[in-house]
Amino acid sequence: MPETMGARNRVISVVETVFRKYGYEPLETPALESMDVLNMKVGEDTGKQIYRVEDGKLGMRFDLTVPLARLVAGNPSIPKPFKRYCIGKVWRREEPQKGRFREFLQADVDVVGSPRMECEAELIACACECLKELGFSDFTVRINNRKIMDAIVKKLGVKAQPEAVFRALDKLGKIGEGGVEQELEGIGVGKKEKDELIGFVSEKGSDEQITTKMEKYSAEGAGELKEILRLCGIYGVGNVSVDMSLMRGLDYYTGPVFEISAGEGVGSIAGGGRYDNLISSYGGGEVPAVGISLGIERIMALLEGKGGKGASLDVYVAAVKPEFYGKSVEAAKKLRGEGLSIQVDVMGRNLRKQLEYANSKGVRFAAIIGQKEAEAGKVTLRNLANGDEKLVSIQEAAKIVRG
Amino acid sequence: MPETMGARNRVISVVETVFRKYGYEPLETPALESMDVLNMKVGEDTGKQIYRVEDGKLGMRFDLTVPLARLVAGNPSIPKPFKRYCIGKVWRREEPQKGRFREFLQADVDVVGSPRMECEAELIACACECLKELGFSDFTVRINNRKIMDAIVKKLGVKAQPEAVFRALDKLGKIGEGGVEQELEGIGVGKKEKDELIGFVSEKGSDEQITTKMEKYSAEGAGELKEILRLCGIYGVGNVSVDMSLMRGLDYYTGPVFEISAGEGVGSIAGGGRYDNLISSYGGGEVPAVGISLGIERIMALLEGKGGKGASLDVYVAAVKPEFYGKSVEAAKKLRGEGLSIQVDVMGRNLRKQLEYANSKGVRFAAIIGQKEAEAGKVTLRNLANGDEKLVSIQEAAKIVRG
Repeated sequence: MPETMGARNRVISVVETVFRKYGYEPLETPALESMDVLNMKVGEDTGKQIYRVEDGKLGMRFDLTVPLARLVAGNPSIPKPFKRYCIGKVWRREEPQKGRFREFLQADVDVVGSPRMECEAELIACACECLKELGFSDFTVRINNRKIMDAIVKKLGVKAQPEAVFRALDKLGKIGEGGVEQELEGIGVGKKEKDELIGFVSEKGSDEQITTKMEKYSAEGAGELKEILRLCGIYGVGNVSVDMSLMRGLDYYTGPVFEISAGEGVGSIAGGGRYDNLISSYGGGEVPAVGISLGIERIMALLEGKGGKGASLDVYVAAVKPEFYGKSVEAAKKLRGEGLSIQVDVMGRNLRKQLEYANSKGVRFAAIIGQKEAEAGKVTLRNLANGDEKLVSIQEAAKIVRG
Repeated sequence: MPETMGARNRVISVVETVFRKYGYEPLETPALESMDVLNMKVGEDTGKQIYRVEDGKLGMRFDLTVPLARLVAGNPSIPKPFKRYCIGKVWRREEPQKGRFREFLQADVDVVGSPRMECEAELIACACECLKELGFSDFTVRINNRKIMDAIVKKLGVKAQPEAVFRALDKLGKIGEGGVEQELEGIGVGKKEKDELIGFVSEKGSDEQITTKMEKYSAEGAGELKEILRLCGIYGVGNVSVDMSLMRGLDYYTGPVFEISAGEGVGSIAGGGRYDNLISSYGGGEVPAVGISLGIERIMALLEGKGGKGASLDVYVAAVKPEFYGKSVEAAKKLRGEGLSIQVDVMGRNLRKQLEYANSKGVRFAAIIGQKEAEAGKVTLRNLANGDEKLVSIQEAAKIVRG
């Protein structure tokens, strides 16, 4: 409904303004891609969520990262770093058995072409600034690194695909330890390895303790996490900590992954990670890349109640009788020229009904035009909140409305 | 690419501002609808263009009108008139044999709940104002009325579905008289009726001559066209004329239809019409409605060359050596606080490479930070267009960049 849309437009506008301030440029990608493109490196669970179009030849994008990777692969001459933002819809089939469909709005920023942790820090800082500007104060950033998890899986001699292991571990919060154990068994992970894996992801301690412990599995992975922590300090982003249980569900991540939550138990409102191999999988050569995605619906749900009404209608220009319709259109035109949002009657309603409608829509002022006003070349401006009236010129009316 | 996106964002922003000034409120509808909803009253040709999802249970919207009608039917308590705008993507399979897909951005305004021609006039005026604001000066508005065409088909005793006849006649510009004749034959229209139909749509003359002639077929239809002409006069919209060959391809139109073209032979950039029976076909009771749709890609193609580059990046903050990275992040933060669009290095590049990159991206200024600047708490601001340099504070830099 219009009120919700107004709130949504404000969220989008805030996010877009911050993205631009950080030097990201808009780039949109198609909503439809070939299934070959969409199915690459996303993993089984996500693959199942893709809406298939045209007998399965095409699919609807389930994120904004895959279409970006495909596009960059096809346009190797884009200057690097390529810093883009995209605010657009994605589709995921959440409950296929009921035939229901889900549509989400995501806001993504990505840095393409740099392997350095400066990107991760900037993306996290940029996302945090969006959240601050939107009115969030109590949020936390958790980071982990696929390189460490990869090394652990290898060291334990787990025979299952590492990505399948990550997907299983990713569900710890949703299905609990028992569920994860079952899933790990299902993909052939033995009891001992299973316990060790769950032990790893349950690792607690200070960032320093955890990264030091993880250095023996992947010095590179642990070093990257330390570097992100240091750089986030430069950006003045607090509340960043290492969380070994953070997996992120998608197969395409290759390095650091991160997630931002707003308060305890609310779930994540932003998340992302590094996907250094995704672009090359579309034939684009080795191009490192990393991105973060904000979930607009999730953000709006949390903001609910905080925001006000949608952008209000400023003035309803009401004709006392049909013969003043021309004058009301003229007055509306002038008021629009002052940048105001104006309605005039399109129902042939009498004055009382016009004002009732204006009230029902929450319009702030009515500019009434009858014989007296037409002769004086003025309007009677009525404040619909308190009933105050005044005979004024259009320019005076615009001034009053603008406050 | 980002430059195109910048131009597109500007078009959207102009259009949205005008829509709001006319008192339209944002309302978005889902991109996916059930095929039962999409197939209602759209006609065979358009039906074939719908992308089917989930084994044909769902489809992707091919316009923004049908989802609006479905939504209004399901929410009968919305105060009338309901004036909404929607800027969103639609999908039409234009060349199914090649498996290619097409994605379009449309900007629609609709008035729901009023049968009066004031709506038509306001929508036409609003669309024309959008085009003027975008820089178009040479455009023409053509109007016709399905009621007249319906009456003619009936009077001629044509046995084919009137909508099928309209769809055939709609192709006059595309496939010529011969093609239309063939298509009319195909749906069982006899030779005499065929000639008469083509004679009708080729009718030339002043608006007054044509409407007077059409009065004997549908006094109501001709009266509505006259009323639109009169009301467009009140709105100061010139270049409106009656064109009996204007059909519009969709089956759901029931009354006036209209189209706006920018110059000779360029095709339409906006079009719409009245669809008084569409909402009731979704079980929503009798709710009259009318809308107009602007084709953003078509508009952009015509504007090409007129517009400038995308919203430019204001400042690239360059560190002379890696040890000044922290200072560059700090400076970037302050400049962003001044509302500017700022990039800092994320590649670990040397100064020369940073400035080369900034130049390649068309960034206007570089703020360079080395030992001297760090000690003074200032930056060297270089105008990348002419090479001018100056050691200034962040505040001074922001002032210079803002011009």
